[in-house]
Amino acid sequence: MEDWLRFSVCYWHSFCGTGADPFGFQTLHRPWNEGATPMECAKKRLHAAFEFFTKLGVKYYTFHDRDMSPEGRTLEESNSNLDEMTDLALQLQNRTGVKVLWVTCNLFAHSRYMNGAATNPDCHVLAYAGAQVKKGLDVAKKLGAENFVFWGGREGFYSIHNTDVGAELKHMANFFKMAVKYKEKIGLKCQFLIEPKPKEPCKHQYDYDAMSVIGFLKHYELDSHFKLNIEPNHTTLAGHSYEHDVIMASVFGMLGSVDSNTGSPDLGWDTDQFPMDIRNTTMIMKTVIEQGGLQPGGLNFDAKVRRESTDLEDLFIAHVGAMDAFARGLRNAVRIIEEGVITSMVKERYMSFSHGIGQKVVDGSTSLEELEDFVKQNGEPKVTSGKQEKYETVFNHYL
Amino acid sequence: MEDWLRFSVCYWHSFCGTGADPFGFQTLHRPWNEGATPMECAKKRLHAAFEFFTKLGVKYYTFHDRDMSPEGRTLEESNSNLDEMTDLALQLQNRTGVKVLWVTCNLFAHSRYMNGAATNPDCHVLAYAGAQVKKGLDVAKKLGAENFVFWGGREGFYSIHNTDVGAELKHMANFFKMAVKYKEKIGLKCQFLIEPKPKEPCKHQYDYDAMSVIGFLKHYELDSHFKLNIEPNHTTLAGHSYEHDVIMASVFGMLGSVDSNTGSPDLGWDTDQFPMDIRNTTMIMKTVIEQGGLQPGGLNFDAKVRRESTDLEDLFIAHVGAMDAFARGLRNAVRIIEEGVITSMVKERYMSFSHGIGQKVVDGSTSLEELEDFVKQNGEPKVTSGKQEKYETVFNHYL
Amino acid sequence: MEDWLRFSVCYWHSFCGTGADPFGFQTLHRPWNEGATPMECAKKRLHAAFEFFTKLGVKYYTFHDRDMSPEGRTLEESNSNLDEMTDLALQLQNRTGVKVLWVTCNLFAHSRYMNGAATNPDCHVLAYAGAQVKKGLDVAKKLGAENFVFWGGREGFYSIHNTDVGAELKHMANFFKMAVKYKEKIGLKCQFLIEPKPKEPCKHQYDYDAMSVIGFLKHYELDSHFKLNIEPNHTTLAGHSYEHDVIMASVFGMLGSVDSNTGSPDLGWDTDQFPMDIRNTTMIMKTVIEQGGLQPGGLNFDAKVRRESTDLEDLFIAHVGAMDAFARGLRNAVRIIEEGVITSMVKERYMSFSHGIGQKVVDGSTSLEELEDFVKQNGEPKVTSGKQEKYETVFNHYL
Amino acid sequence: MEDWLRFSVCYWHSFCGTGADPFGFQTLHRPWNEGATPMECAKKRLHAAFEFFTKLGVKYYTFHDRDMSPEGRTLEESNSNLDEMTDLALQLQNRTGVKVLWVTCNLFAHSRYMNGAATNPDCHVLAYAGAQVKKGLDVAKKLGAENFVFWGGREGFYSIHNTDVGAELKHMANFFKMAVKYKEKIGLKCQFLIEPKPKEPCKHQYDYDAMSVIGFLKHYELDSHFKLNIEPNHTTLAGHSYEHDVIMASVFGMLGSVDSNTGSPDLGWDTDQFPMDIRNTTMIMKTVIEQGGLQPGGLNFDAKVRRESTDLEDLFIAHVGAMDAFARGLRNAVRIIEEGVITSMVKERYMSFSHGIGQKVVDGSTSLEELEDFVKQNGEPKVTSGKQEKYETVFNHYL
Repeated sequence: MEDWLRFSVCYWHSFCGTGADPFGFQTLHRPWNEGATPMECAKKRLHAAFEFFTKLGVKYYTFHDRDMSPEGRTLEESNSNLDEMTDLALQLQNRTGVKVLWVTCNLFAHSRYMNGAATNPDCHVLAYAGAQVKKGLDVAKKLGAENFVFWGGREGFYSIHNTDVGAELKHMANFFKMAVKYKEKIGLKCQFLIEPKPKEPCKHQYDYDAMSVIGFLKHYELDSHFKLNIEPNHTTLAGHSYEHDVIMASVFGMLGSVDSNTGSPDLGWDTDQFPMDIRNTTMIMKTVIEQGGLQPGGLNFDAKVRRESTDLEDLFIAHVGAMDAFARGLRNAVRIIEEGVITSMVKERYMSFSHGIGQKVVDGSTSLEELEDFVKQNGEPKVTSGKQEKYETVFNHYL
Repeated sequence: MEDWLRFSVCYWHSFCGTGADPFGFQTLHRPWNEGATPMECAKKRLHAAFEFFTKLGVKYYTFHDRDMSPEGRTLEESNSNLDEMTDLALQLQNRTGVKVLWVTCNLFAHSRYMNGAATNPDCHVLAYAGAQVKKGLDVAKKLGAENFVFWGGREGFYSIHNTDVGAELKHMANFFKMAVKYKEKIGLKCQFLIEPKPKEPCKHQYDYDAMSVIGFLKHYELDSHFKLNIEPNHTTLAGHSYEHDVIMASVFGMLGSVDSNTGSPDLGWDTDQFPMDIRNTTMIMKTVIEQGGLQPGGLNFDAKVRRESTDLEDLFIAHVGAMDAFARGLRNAVRIIEEGVITSMVKERYMSFSHGIGQKVVDGSTSLEELEDFVKQNGEPKVTSGKQEKYETVFNHYL
Repeated sequence: MEDWLRFSVCYWHSFCGTGADPFGFQTLHRPWNEGATPMECAKKRLHAAFEFFTKLGVKYYTFHDRDMSPEGRTLEESNSNLDEMTDLALQLQNRTGVKVLWVTCNLFAHSRYMNGAATNPDCHVLAYAGAQVKKGLDVAKKLGAENFVFWGGREGFYSIHNTDVGAELKHMANFFKMAVKYKEKIGLKCQFLIEPKPKEPCKHQYDYDAMSVIGFLKHYELDSHFKLNIEPNHTTLAGHSYEHDVIMASVFGMLGSVDSNTGSPDLGWDTDQFPMDIRNTTMIMKTVIEQGGLQPGGLNFDAKVRRESTDLEDLFIAHVGAMDAFARGLRNAVRIIEEGVITSMVKERYMSFSHGIGQKVVDGSTSLEELEDFVKQNGEPKVTSGKQEKYETVFNHYL
Repeated sequence: MEDWLRFSVCYWHSFCGTGADPFGFQTLHRPWNEGATPMECAKKRLHAAFEFFTKLGVKYYTFHDRDMSPEGRTLEESNSNLDEMTDLALQLQNRTGVKVLWVTCNLFAHSRYMNGAATNPDCHVLAYAGAQVKKGLDVAKKLGAENFVFWGGREGFYSIHNTDVGAELKHMANFFKMAVKYKEKIGLKCQFLIEPKPKEPCKHQYDYDAMSVIGFLKHYELDSHFKLNIEPNHTTLAGHSYEHDVIMASVFGMLGSVDSNTGSPDLGWDTDQFPMDIRNTTMIMKTVIEQGGLQPGGLNFDAKVRRESTDLEDLFIAHVGAMDAFARGLRNAVRIIEEGVITSMVKERYMSFSHGIGQKVVDGSTSLEELEDFVKQNGEPKVTSGKQEKYETVFNHYL
C-alpha cells in the first residue's frame, strides 16, 4: 500500500499557515511560530514538522525555499539563511528517514514578483528569479529531492492591456531552458515538474491546465525535460472535472505527481481542502495504478486545515482523514482493476480497432478513399449504446 | 474597411434555424423552409440566402454540408444531393460574387455520431466520417472555399468511465492526417482550421480551447497544417475572457479566422448571440490589425437571432447591428494603434529586454549563473507600478 | 424503506424523450412513439409507461398535461384529448395502484409561450396559460394527484432591455392567486409546489432558487399556499452545493418534494442525469428524515438516460441504479442519525444558546445594551475550533 | 450631475489596503501607514484621506469602525480609540464639508468572528458583535452618517455538517431586531442597509443576493427597517448579470445604495476593481434615474487599486477613471430616457395590460374561468417578436 500511496506533507500550509484570509486576520497560533527571531522560529518550526511527519508516519515532505527559511535583506543573506536551515533539514532527514518529495522556489509572494517572475516586464526581476532558482536547484541536490516543481502563480497577467503575451512566453521558455542547463551542469537527477493553475492570483495564468502546459512545452521544445504536478483543485478551477487533468497528463505521458487536495465545486477560488471524497480518490488511484505508479512523484497534501480548525489535533485529523480517503480509493481502484468488469466493458467497446480497417486507422495506413470504400460496402453503422448509467452503477458497486 | 472586416453570414443559424430549444418547439417559420420536398426546400433556402447576402452586402458565407443539402438514406444519396445543391450554389456564387469563407462537415447531428465521429469507439463510424469529409473537401474545392473548418462537437466524452482517451486522441490525429493527405492529393488550396470548444454537447471536448488544440496539434505533428477558428462564445465557456483565445492563437501564429458572436458571461451554455459589445469588438479588431489581418479567414457571424425574434426583419437588424459594432470596433482599434499611446506605454514597460542582460534573455544566450551575478551587482529590483487603471482609462477614451 | 423513498418516474424524459439535443437529432427510437396517429401513440406510450412503473415497482409518476396528451389545434381540442387520455390514465392507475405524485402544465414549449406565460407581455398569452392551468387543476383532481407543480421555464427574461420586471412579477403573483382560488373552488386538496431554476431556457428566471421563491411568495402573501419542489441540478446551476436548496427550503418549512437528479458540476446547463453519488443521496435523505419525511411529496426522478444510452434496458438500469443510490443514502442517513455522533457534536456546538444570555437571544428578550454588559463582564470570547475536517471524517465513516 | 452621482470613497481599500493577497505580501507602502504607533498612524491616515477626498472633490466617504480606529486589547479600549478618532473625523468633516455616506462594523476580520458574528455558535461572540454594533450606531449618530451597512461576511457557513442553519438564521434575525430597537432608542435617523454577497469568505453566505435578503427580511418581518446596498461584483459572483441585483432591489422598493465596483466575469472571487465599463455604468444610472435617485444612498467606490498599481497617483487615476465612467453612464442614461425610444418600445410591448382583460389581471379582479372564456372567444394569441437585437442595437446607439 505504501508504494502506491507516496504521501507527502506540505510545509507551507501545515507549518507556516496562519489562518489569515482576505477578509480576516490570523486564527492559527502555532507554538513553533511564536516568540523568537525569524531564524529561531524557522528552526522550531522544522523540528515540529519532523515530529509531525514521524508521528503521522509519512515518508515525504515538500517545501518552498522561503517556507523553510526566512527571506533576508539581500539575496546573499537569503541564501545564507537557506544554507543554515537546509543543514538542519538534512540532519533531520537523516535522523528520521523522511525525504523531500519536491522542493520549489517561491517566486510569487515577495512584492518584487507582483508583475511576474520569469514573465516580469523588468528583466531585473527575471534575473532575481533566476538567481533564486539556481539556489533552489542547489538545495534540491543537497537534500536529495526527488522532484523540483515550478508553479507560476504570477506568470500570467492581470490586464491584457499592459501585457505583451508573446514576449512573456518567450522569456518564460528561455528561463526554463536555463534551469534545465543548470540542472544538468550540477548533475541534479530529480524530475522537473510544472504545476498548472488557471488563474488566481493572476486573472490568467499561462499554465492554465494540463493541455496548456503541454502545448507550451512542445512549442518551445521543452517537453522532454518536464512532467506535470497536477492539483485537482486547480483542475476544477479550470472548468474540468476533478480527475480530468490527472487523466489527460497521464495519457500524454506527462503525469509526474499529484497535489492531493480538493476544492468545493461551487466556489471559484482555491480552497485547498483536504481530499475526503472517496469517488475522487478512487478515480485518481485508478489512473495512478494504470500508469504503473507515480514514482518519483507522490501524493502531496497541498491542503490546509480550515482557518476555523484551530486545534492542533485538527492537523492530525485532517491528514489522517485524507490518507484514509486515499487508502479507500486505492482499495476500490484495485478491486475495479482486478475484477476487470469495467476494463472489459471498455475493451469490448473499442474492439473494432483491433483488426481490419480499424487496425489500419490505428497504424495510420489507411486513407479517406479507403474509408469511403468501406462505407460503400458496409453501409450505415449500427447505433451502439454508450451505457453511461451502467458504467456508473457498476462503478458505484466498488465504492 | 472592407478588407479588415471580412464579414460572413452563417447558413445554419440564419437559414436553417427553427428557434427550437431544449425546452421549446419551433418559433421561426421561414417561407423558404415550408411546403415542398426536402430538395425543393433546400433550393428555395439557398436562393433566399443569396438574396439576403446580396441585400446585406456581405461577401462571404459559411455552411455545413448538411445545411446546404439534405442527408439521404445512403452516403451515395447524400453525396448526390450535395452535388446538385452545390451546382446551384456555384451558379449563385458566380452570379452574385459572394464567396465561401469556409465549409465544414456536420459530424455531430446524425445519431450515428452520438458517440463521436473521428473519436467514435466504433471504427465504422469513423469510416463514415472519413467518407463525409472526403466529399466535403471535394465540395470545398468545387466552390473555391477559402478555408475548411473542423468542429469536433462530439469529439470528447460524456463519461470518463466508458472512454479510452488515449486511443481516441490517436484516432483523431490519424483522421486529420488522412484529411491533410487527401487535401494535398486533390490540390485543395484552402486553410484547414480547427474550432475549439470546451464542452457542450460533450461533457468534455478534446479541443477545449486554443492552447489545448495547439498542444494536440504539436504532439501529433499536425501544427503546420492547421490554424484555429476562434469563437469567443466558446472562449468564455472555457473560463477565459472574451478576447483571450483570439489573442493566444495570434501569439502562437495560429489565428486563422473568428466566429464573431457572443454569449452572456452569466450563462453556462453557447447562446450564439450577435456581438454587440463595442469593447469586445475593439479588442478583437486590435488583435486582427496587429497580426496584419485575417486573410484568408474572416469574421463569420456564427450567431442566431433569439428564438423570440420572430420577424424576418430581425435577421437584418441583428446582422446590421453586429456589423456596426465591428465597424465601431475597427475604428476604435485604428485610433488606438495610430495614436500609439497604449503601444508606447507597453513598449516602455518591456524596455529592459531591448539591451544588456534582457537582450541576452531574449536571445537565449545567458544562464542562471549570469543572472545571479547580475543580481549580486545590482541588488533588489525596483518595484514598478503595473498601472492597470491607467491603461483602462486610456482604453476607455477610445470607446 | 418505502415510506421514506417515495420514488416517482417522470413521464416526459422517460417516455417522451427522443434524445435530440441542441446539436443532434433523435437517437432514442421507442416502440411506443412510432407508427400511429398522435392519439394512438399517446395511448401506446401510456400503456408502456404503466408496464414500466409496475415492473420497476415504483408507486408514483409525474407528468405535464402535454406529455400525456397531444396539443390540439385549439384549446378545446387539447382539452378533449386530455380528457380522453386521463380517462385511460385513471383506468391504469386503478388497475395497477400507481398514483400521481404530481401533475404540471407545460407553459413553456409551445411558441405562444416563448416570451413567458404568466409573465408574457401580451395578456392574451397569460389568459391562455390561465385556461391551461384551469384544466390542469381539473385533471389533478380527477387523477388524485398529491401535488401540483409550477415550473416557470419562461417566467423571466432573455434581455433586460425589453422587460418590465415589476409588471411581470405582479402579473405572475396575480396569476398564482387565481390558481389558488380555483383550487379552493373545486375542492382540490393537493399541495401546490413551485420549482426553482435559476436560468435556462431564460437568461434569468424569477424563481432563481429557494430563497428567491420564498422572497417572492412572502412579498405577495402567497407563502401559505405553496411549498417548493427542489431539483438539485437546478440548485447547482444557481451556484449552490447539491443539497443546499433542499436544506434551505426545509429550514423555512417549505420543502415539499425533490426532483431527484444530478448535473455535472463542471457543466453550466441542466443535464438531468440520474443521481448516482452516494454522498449526495445521503445528504438529501438526512434532511428528509430530519423534517419527518416528504409526504405528500416524494423523490421524482426528473432525469433522462443519456442520448447515447439507446438500449431499452438502459431505462431500467438507470432507474435501478438511482434507486439503489437513494437506498444507500437512506441507510447511511439512518445510521448517522441513530448513532448520533454528528448530531451530538452539533448540539454541543450551539450549547451556549440553551441558557442565560444565549437563551435570551433565542427568545428575543435581550438588547444591544445587555449584550454589551455581558461582554464587559466576560471579556473576550474563547476561540473554538469549527472542526470541519473532523465532521468530514466522521461523515465519511458512514458512507 | 452631482445630485445623481453621489460618489463616495471607501476608507478601507484606499487608505488601509496593503496590496497583500492570499499569495503575496504587501506591495503598497503608503506614507500614512508607516512609522508611528497605531493611533498616530490612524490619525495620519485620516488626515491623508480627507486631503484626498478634498482634492478629488468627492463629498462622501464610508468606513468600518476598525478601519478608522485600531482594535484595542479590550472592548473598552477599542471604544475609547474610536471615540478619539471620531472626534478627529468630526473636525475634519466640519472643516471640509465631506460627509459619511455610511458606516459599518467590521464583524468578520478578528479571529473571534471566524465562525460568524450574529450567527456564531457561541453566544458570547454574538454578544461581542452586539456590543460592537451598539458602539457603531453611536458613531453613526455622532458623525451624521446617512446610512448604516451590515455586511455579513462570516454570516453563513463553511461546512453544512457542523451548522444548524435554522438556529443561525433566527439568531441573526433577532440580532437585527436589537439593532433596530437601539437605533430607534438613540434617535438615529439613518437608513439601515444589508449588503448581499453569495460566498467568500464563507462557502455560503445567508445574504446570497438581493432576493435572498428580501426573503429573509420578509420572513422575519424586518423588511420595513432595511434596504439593500448592492455591490455588482457580488451580484456577478452570485451568477447574475452586472446590473441584476440593482434592478431587482429597485423593483422591490429596496434599493438603498450601490457599491460601485466591478469584477471580471471570468474570475470566481471578489476583485473589487474600479468600474470602467460604460455599458454597465449606463445600466446602473438608468435604474437610479428611474427610481428617482439613490438618496440617502450613493455610489460608493468599494474598489481597490490593483496590488501592482503601486504609485500614489494610481489612487487618483483609478477614482477619476471610475467617476468618468459613471458620468458617461449618467449622460447615456439621460439621453436614453429623454429621447424615450426604448421606453416607448417597452411601453407598447406591455400595452395589452392597460385595458380589458389585461387591466383586470393587474387589478386582481379576474379568474381562471374568465381567462378561459377569453381564450375561447379569442383563440390562439399572435406570436410577437421580442426584438432583442433591435433593443440592443438601439441601446448601443447611446453608448
